[in-house]
Amino acid sequence: MFIFGKSRKGTSAERPSSSGSSFVRHRALSVRSKNGGGGSTQTSPTHRKGFTFASLRGSIQPELSRKLYRVIKSSNNLVSAHENAGRERTNIATQLSEWGEQTGDDGVSDISDKVGVILSELGDVEDNYAHGLEDARGVLKTIRNTEKSVQPSRDSKAKIADEIQKIKVKEPQSTRLVILEQELIRAEAENLVAEAQLTNVTRQKLKEAYAAEFAAVIERAEKQIILAKHGRRLLTLLDDSPVTPGDARESYQEGSAARQILNDAEDDLRKWEPDLDFEPGAGPAGRVATPEREVENARPLPVDDGNYMTPAVAKSDAADAELRTGDNVHTTGVAA
Amino acid sequence: MFIFGKSRKGTSAERPSSSGSSFVRHRALSVRSKNGGGGSTQTSPTHRKGFTFASLRGSIQPELSRKLYRVIKSSNNLVSAHENAGRERTNIATQLSEWGEQTGDDGVSDISDKVGVILSELGDVEDNYAHGLEDARGVLKTIRNTEKSVQPSRDSKAKIADEIQKIKVKEPQSTRLVILEQELIRAEAENLVAEAQLTNVTRQKLKEAYAAEFAAVIERAEKQIILAKHGRRLLTLLDDSPVTPGDARESYQEGSAARQILNDAEDDLRKWEPDLDFEPGAGPAGRVATPEREVENARPLPVDDGNYMTPAVAKSDAADAELRTGDNVHTTGVAA
Repeated sequence: MFIFGKSRKGTSAERPSSSGSSFVRHRALSVRSKNGGGGSTQTSPTHRKGFTFASLRGSIQPELSRKLYRVIKSSNNLVSAHENAGRERTNIATQLSEWGEQTGDDGVSDISDKVGVILSELGDVEDNYAHGLEDARGVLKTIRNTEKSVQPSRDSKAKIADEIQKIKVKEPQSTRLVILEQELIRAEAENLVAEAQLTNVTRQKLKEAYAAEFAAVIERAEKQIILAKHGRRLLTLLDDSPVTPGDARESYQEGSAARQILNDAEDDLRKWEPDLDFEPGAGPAGRVATPEREVENARPLPVDDGNYMTPAVAKSDAADAELRTGDNVHTTGVAA
Repeated sequence: MFIFGKSRKGTSAERPSSSGSSFVRHRALSVRSKNGGGGSTQTSPTHRKGFTFASLRGSIQPELSRKLYRVIKSSNNLVSAHENAGRERTNIATQLSEWGEQTGDDGVSDISDKVGVILSELGDVEDNYAHGLEDARGVLKTIRNTEKSVQPSRDSKAKIADEIQKIKVKEPQSTRLVILEQELIRAEAENLVAEAQLTNVTRQKLKEAYAAEFAAVIERAEKQIILAKHGRRLLTLLDDSPVTPGDARESYQEGSAARQILNDAEDDLRKWEPDLDFEPGAGPAGRVATPEREVENARPLPVDDGNYMTPAVAKSDAADAELRTGDNVHTTGVAA
């Protein structure tokens, strides 16, 4: 068990036994590549390349949402991999059963067919797992969409501040300064709301997404354990004591026992329930995960251009803004 | 829980509740397609097509081993699917951690990094699962190779019998008949041994292969449950109560608690042991699964051409033949 090997570095004093593995492992308590940006350069979607397929597919992301975009893209590959696995399982189930039939050996024929049923159920569970991962992925999109919508707010604030600095240098008396400073305060207020929405959505949806993902892992695991253990019972029904040439095997008598095992497996699967002892944590009821409908372009958060807003005012609006967040992020969905 | 729906048909009397699902399901207690040959026509390797890539790759199988060849081929796809899944998991782990770092939010940064460690461990377990499936697949090859080696024995027996019939019609007095009948008895004796070896290898290796496969399913499941449950503990460390614009979040204090959770996960994984309560069944010790070395061409079982053997003699040789089986099948491995 070398996993987390390096993680022991800190505590190898208590566990000298496993500290030996510290150096053979590439992983630490962190999976973060030491140079923060390193990862993004490897696989980030092509940008600064003008007109490319990536740009057509809208996969050029604002800086803020680029890293999560990669996670969502890789998650899509993960979903496909498990979908393929489920499909192959089902193919194998039928092929194994047909092979057994062709052997002309009643015992091999029946057991291979029943094992095939177990395998194809394993395949169904694998496929459901893929759907569970897809749902979790949908929740991550909510974060990414909020990130996208916050970017313009940051940009406009920075742009106004820039302009003010320029003018202060060139023409300190300009009356435009007053206007611009008012605009800046409004932009800052709007950005305060946007950033609050971002941190709230990020934390709530991050927990929601991985709570859903871990729940899917546990459901697949518990159901496949049920199936595999009944599958092993099936194997014990097949007598594999060697026969000598010229001797016939005793005829196969285990058909009904094998059928009963499949019935037991079905009963156990029907009894299965998710363990609800886990509550990922707070978060308004409205925030339950629903992979949002995809739309072509992201819309920035609504900005009350007209109003002069102080941070204080913004604060009093926060609850309302807070409530709107859910809808905002859902109307800004973008295909990964 | 509609699985096995149709399987209820037989016993729907006892369970009327679930019999309603009987008709929405395509699967029964059997996964066998009603027309036995139907399956093979769909995806059986191209044959009777003369010189093709398939023939170059040696994927033209004798009738006897064709169906198992398909199972082994699909199993290879299954292995690849889970290898890909493991790889994507590891990518996502790093990408998620790098995203968290970029948020500039200490809490999100630490939790996303630690969750990343859990995810990459899930990926490792998935990859080990793929290797377990590959081992089980290697055991199935033992059966296929025996099937291949038995085919010539059946053919030569049939060929001699044919010839005898022809001659009996054309020239009943031919002296060749005596010779041919002696040859036929030898061929029958040799075939008796071959068929005994086939049934013995088939039953033992079928149980061995799927015992290994189910064990791999259970190991992946139990280990991933450990990881997922500790992963959920990590999520609870992230405070996601909404903040109002202008308010700062309390600083993140859970770093050491998060590290402890990873240590707990490692400890639990180290403590994991396979449940040895299961014994797939008899079978000489020498038959433990070892994916045999691949060689280019199948060799038929050795035939004692010289000896006149009656079935009785063959029988007395059986134990010996029985012992040889393991080696024979291992020296007749063929790449899938």
